[in-house]
Amino acid sequence: MLITFYSDITVIIAELESHHQSVMEHSHVPSTMRAVVLNTYDDSSEALTIEEHPVPQPGKGQVLVHMAASPINPSDLMFLRGLYGVRKELPVVPGFEGSGTVVATGDWTTSRALLGRNVACLALDDTNGTWAEYMVTSINRCIPLLGINDLQGAMLVVNPGTAWGLIDIARREKHRAVVQTAAAGALGQMIVRLSQRYQLPMIHIVRRQEQVALLRGLGAIHILDSSASDFDEQLRARCRELGTTLAFDAVAGEMTGRVLQAMPKGARITVYGGLSEQPCQIHPLDPIFKGKTVDGFWLSSWLEKQTLPDILRLARGIQQLINTDLKSTVRACFPLEEARQALDLYAQRMTEGKVLLMPALRRK
Amino acid sequence: MLITFYSDITVIIAELESHHQSVMEHSHVPSTMRAVVLNTYDDSSEALTIEEHPVPQPGKGQVLVHMAASPINPSDLMFLRGLYGVRKELPVVPGFEGSGTVVATGDWTTSRALLGRNVACLALDDTNGTWAEYMVTSINRCIPLLGINDLQGAMLVVNPGTAWGLIDIARREKHRAVVQTAAAGALGQMIVRLSQRYQLPMIHIVRRQEQVALLRGLGAIHILDSSASDFDEQLRARCRELGTTLAFDAVAGEMTGRVLQAMPKGARITVYGGLSEQPCQIHPLDPIFKGKTVDGFWLSSWLEKQTLPDILRLARGIQQLINTDLKSTVRACFPLEEARQALDLYAQRMTEGKVLLMPALRRK
Repeated sequence: MLITFYSDITVIIAELESHHQSVMEHSHVPSTMRAVVLNTYDDSSEALTIEEHPVPQPGKGQVLVHMAASPINPSDLMFLRGLYGVRKELPVVPGFEGSGTVVATGDWTTSRALLGRNVACLALDDTNGTWAEYMVTSINRCIPLLGINDLQGAMLVVNPGTAWGLIDIARREKHRAVVQTAAAGALGQMIVRLSQRYQLPMIHIVRRQEQVALLRGLGAIHILDSSASDFDEQLRARCRELGTTLAFDAVAGEMTGRVLQAMPKGARITVYGGLSEQPCQIHPLDPIFKGKTVDGFWLSSWLEKQTLPDILRLARGIQQLINTDLKSTVRACFPLEEARQALDLYAQRMTEGKVLLMPALRRK
Repeated sequence: MLITFYSDITVIIAELESHHQSVMEHSHVPSTMRAVVLNTYDDSSEALTIEEHPVPQPGKGQVLVHMAASPINPSDLMFLRGLYGVRKELPVVPGFEGSGTVVATGDWTTSRALLGRNVACLALDDTNGTWAEYMVTSINRCIPLLGINDLQGAMLVVNPGTAWGLIDIARREKHRAVVQTAAAGALGQMIVRLSQRYQLPMIHIVRRQEQVALLRGLGAIHILDSSASDFDEQLRARCRELGTTLAFDAVAGEMTGRVLQAMPKGARITVYGGLSEQPCQIHPLDPIFKGKTVDGFWLSSWLEKQTLPDILRLARGIQQLINTDLKSTVRACFPLEEARQALDLYAQRMTEGKVLLMPALRRK
């Protein structure tokens, strides 16, 4: 099993660059490719297989991307079990985002401008995704990468876009202070850094004592460990002190209700993940007598509601910050053949860094 | 124990009328009165006592009401256990609404106009309530009763106001159709009738098969029994068919999430009660991917947001409809001394009719 820790990443990048070089020089697209395939939504051991598939052909307004890297996100874990907002017809190649090089186009118009470019790309809604050697997607799901390596480029949209969107909501609605759960995760850390950039006071909730130190290292001030016996009291006191009226929750279960209960009258909790895999538990007194509300955030829905200038601002913003505020820590890279091991490693300790699939790596 | 069933109510009313007559003729206010007193919020057997208290003195802008009748509402059951939106300093007389005759005023201005009038009245927020022979309240918490008897007058505000408010929200926001839980309760039945008056399509959820017949008798069309094995399927199908985008929930617990899950994208559930005494369970996929939201309704908060013309429209509307759409079925009336028995009887089977306390009745 090949696990590449962060210290080895410069080597990986060099390998990838020479790989891209050769791809473009030969501009050779093979007829078949390796792909991770999801066969059932039942989480069984046969659910995922590695298969040899024909390389797909791009249609009008589409491009063929030679994939360099693709992360495993919490949304992928949900998708694999049929629990995500998008369910695709099976069998299908999973993976929602990634990076790679555009090696073919479906027509001679706009898409030609992307030929040969390194891009961050998102999968189409109804067909095969990023966990393969090649993927077809539409040109408006590609963002050309400017001075961003393939690893960070592979993680340009889902987490950075969500962190950006959440902070944008807090700023536009002029909340005095915000709480977040799962603050030590990759996305949580992005929210920590963005909130500091925009001087938005935040209370960060983590699950373990060592995560307090991690966030302290990022410069966070208000950090609470939910395993502490006086957690609810502390949270209530901080919420009152800072005038917190909004919370971002990636945990669900009991945590949603505990955070909502700690906030003052009229507060709102925005659920954007369900890491506990439990239903959100809301004490009915909070909505009834205290005017508190629950809503949700999903990047896809949020993007649909943004104006074109907002989208451009977002695309520029996340590219500018992808190596600082919106940087993801990479824990390991795996070949496609070891997707199962990659998923297991990621699911065990999500906060220890992202795990990526890289088709250029091969099982030794 | 004196239990007066509905058939005897004309007798009760005649008794009350002669009682009022004599109160006003003699205009004699005694120095002490009997009152139900809540001593602890712990639901123990000593929590409620009957005591002889001094009759309170009305202050400026206040009146003294000689109480005729006061209902037990679900909000009273919550208050007695310290679970309601209002907690008062103990010991205190419980009871939020009732009816009676104004027998004294605190000054010679506006409040004089109420002297001798039968009124529906609400308790003040921070002091003794309606479960006593006399209560002091402010003039703006009294509604003069015009052609409405004391029993229906005692139940003029809490349930009718809530039913009116909820239907008003559905109509103003132009929802195509609405779901409600606990549809067979006193408030649920008012919502059934009001929705028919305003031709608002509704799906009514009840807990038992015999309640289906009850609502069928009121002319309701879409009635679902949540104990049926195909309930969730049926609910989903009806919601789709009618285009339901709003739900009113008085149950909380699992029911909140089941209803929200059955509704289409973007739907909202408004919680206004917690009869199950369980936290609302919301599947995180609903807020995240389906843009569904949870909020709450409390008559007091809602009234604060209404304009004066809205309030006048409400006061006129509920008086006009109190003997038809907003009528409450009375199951039994008890003397103050039997408050405990009254509470037990009501809590056992809330949907079988309201239970009221009537200070004029005496334990035989």
